[in-house]
Amino acid sequence: MPKPMNSALLGLEPSAIRRFTALAKETPGCLLLTLGEPEADTPRPVREAAAASLLEGDTHYPPNNGQPWLREGISRFEAERGIVYRPEEVLVTCGATEGIFCALTALLNPGDEVIVPMPAFGLYQSIIGLCRGRMIPLSTGEFRFQLGGEALRRAITPRTKALILTSPNNPTGCVYSRESLAAAAQVAEETGIWVICDDVYSQLVYQEGYRPFAALYPQLKEQTVVVDSFSKPYAMTGWRLGWLMAPGPAALQMAKVHQYATVSVTSFTQRAALEALRWDPAPLRETYRRRRDLACRRLKEMGMEVVEPQGAFYLFPSIRRWGMDSETFCTRLIREGGVALVPGSCFGAEGYVRLSYCCDDRTLEEGLNRLEAFLGRCVPVF
Amino acid sequence: MPKPMNSALLGLEPSAIRRFTALAKETPGCLLLTLGEPEADTPRPVREAAAASLLEGDTHYPPNNGQPWLREGISRFEAERGIVYRPEEVLVTCGATEGIFCALTALLNPGDEVIVPMPAFGLYQSIIGLCRGRMIPLSTGEFRFQLGGEALRRAITPRTKALILTSPNNPTGCVYSRESLAAAAQVAEETGIWVICDDVYSQLVYQEGYRPFAALYPQLKEQTVVVDSFSKPYAMTGWRLGWLMAPGPAALQMAKVHQYATVSVTSFTQRAALEALRWDPAPLRETYRRRRDLACRRLKEMGMEVVEPQGAFYLFPSIRRWGMDSETFCTRLIREGGVALVPGSCFGAEGYVRLSYCCDDRTLEEGLNRLEAFLGRCVPVF
Repeated sequence: MPKPMNSALLGLEPSAIRRFTALAKETPGCLLLTLGEPEADTPRPVREAAAASLLEGDTHYPPNNGQPWLREGISRFEAERGIVYRPEEVLVTCGATEGIFCALTALLNPGDEVIVPMPAFGLYQSIIGLCRGRMIPLSTGEFRFQLGGEALRRAITPRTKALILTSPNNPTGCVYSRESLAAAAQVAEETGIWVICDDVYSQLVYQEGYRPFAALYPQLKEQTVVVDSFSKPYAMTGWRLGWLMAPGPAALQMAKVHQYATVSVTSFTQRAALEALRWDPAPLRETYRRRRDLACRRLKEMGMEVVEPQGAFYLFPSIRRWGMDSETFCTRLIREGGVALVPGSCFGAEGYVRLSYCCDDRTLEEGLNRLEAFLGRCVPVF
Repeated sequence: MPKPMNSALLGLEPSAIRRFTALAKETPGCLLLTLGEPEADTPRPVREAAAASLLEGDTHYPPNNGQPWLREGISRFEAERGIVYRPEEVLVTCGATEGIFCALTALLNPGDEVIVPMPAFGLYQSIIGLCRGRMIPLSTGEFRFQLGGEALRRAITPRTKALILTSPNNPTGCVYSRESLAAAAQVAEETGIWVICDDVYSQLVYQEGYRPFAALYPQLKEQTVVVDSFSKPYAMTGWRLGWLMAPGPAALQMAKVHQYATVSVTSFTQRAALEALRWDPAPLRETYRRRRDLACRRLKEMGMEVVEPQGAFYLFPSIRRWGMDSETFCTRLIREGGVALVPGSCFGAEGYVRLSYCCDDRTLEEGLNRLEAFLGRCVPVF
């Protein structure tokens, strides 16, 4: 009998979204409104930069934390939107996933608590669990997915180590208001907890004048970590390229985790990453804004309650009216309606479903038609 | 004041080899015999496969654990040398580093012990420390870098979770004998501990008829994990591509760590990885064998004791005769001799230095000349 494995890991589940997507893919003709990535390929100049780098022989170990010119490029790029970290405080990571992994692993001692506003991407809970920490869910559904200052304050204990802010949010698409961010800042200032900003959708914001947490509260820099990714704004999900920014001493610790887990990102993708930062995601953003407007209007016409999101490419309507839990709703919708959404339960929020509109227009329209037809056959309970 | 970070990480050091290489690079004219990667670029057909994949738009999320056809290719490739894991038991990882990271993280509970034959690559100790485990060093210097069966048995405690076997070894270049592997197998069978085979140099073996541990002991498969990499045999260090093989239930747990840490490797590198498996590393191996013969002969002529290695691209001669610790020896050698080696202390073995012969012939010869000149100016203590 082999010796038993890590007990912290045994209880954790693989991503429920992937399981659900698999069910949808097995169902013939089912349309997927479940994706978490742009449907387009990476812009050609970015792909060409990597291909050129490859053919020139850039195939050797790069510096662990990323090429100095890329770290500098990211530092400059962030400074333009008011987030100021020196190039040495930037680590190039295997996607935002590795950034979040390095940040949490470098911060948490066993038993530490991390406050995560719910609904949330399941990855946080998994990593916190692997670190033998405790995720403290902070419900936001009653505040239109904003942070309730009082509720946040009540969640704090002596073991609280960090708060995760995902804005725009996955799965709700909502952007935190100035009031939400102010509540987070005040709690952080009073308690010394770390604020981990998962900014992967920060370039896909539809409202004017949005400023991320780290830009609004530079005085909290010594306890703020920013994670971002090339994946969503530049359609680079398969590249596994992101970045992490943390104050000097913390960046050093996070760089150790990065070194032990992956050493570095792929050498010849880094010139392409710099090229991507020059790419303007505005047209993509406009496309998403148009799709959001369409999908939002259609959902409301179907009688679905939905908070109009200001970013990302998700809608998170309530399904309470139909008296089913989200897993039952989504399973029936796949089997009877031929369209797939993700159950809210995958994000720790029952009574909702996530609709992703980063598919093409025709899929979106047909998917919405099918959803409408399905709802027409269900009986609302109120 | 921000809250304190992970205490398990704070005591761990970044790689000492990198620190030493930095010193050498700052020293004008210093030759580096410190590298851990082939000097050649990746073979052109492999690079072209990735470039083609890129230009065709293979830039989306790949399956977490690698493309099914790549996992199948790896499974077939390994089966040819007698190591049998099903494609579902193969994970494609960000280099062997991520493979080792996933394996150890999935196995270790806090306080668990891992036996590591010394000298060893520092990564093991770092990851074990991050997992709050304990590395139990097993000295091999007195056995010509082979495993002493009795010593191994004495190192076992109720907390022993795993044994790491690196063959060919970094830094010694030595390949474990049948007796060494038999001792490991017997202990594993008796105790149920896991055997983690770090096989990254397994295609760079100079002796005939070498068979890796997992091929010799298929009956121990349920407790054997194999980690390998594209880096060394195919000159692909910058690609961050490797693989991990583990029995089904363990592979599932290790896949979770992989999912939480990186999601997947880069999408468009995977076709190139399959292409690499078709590349014959025999000419590269012959080059290394020739350089090993040269370097070994030269070291002996200089009066250095060295165990002739049967693989990898390292030599690990003793420096005891010169009465200096390895860090002093290497620092003086850089400053006074203009050539850099890595101190044995970086691998947990005082009294040795690591010489890497994966540089070009001229650098190797000139580096050896400089070493000889330096030794000529030192006074042996015996």
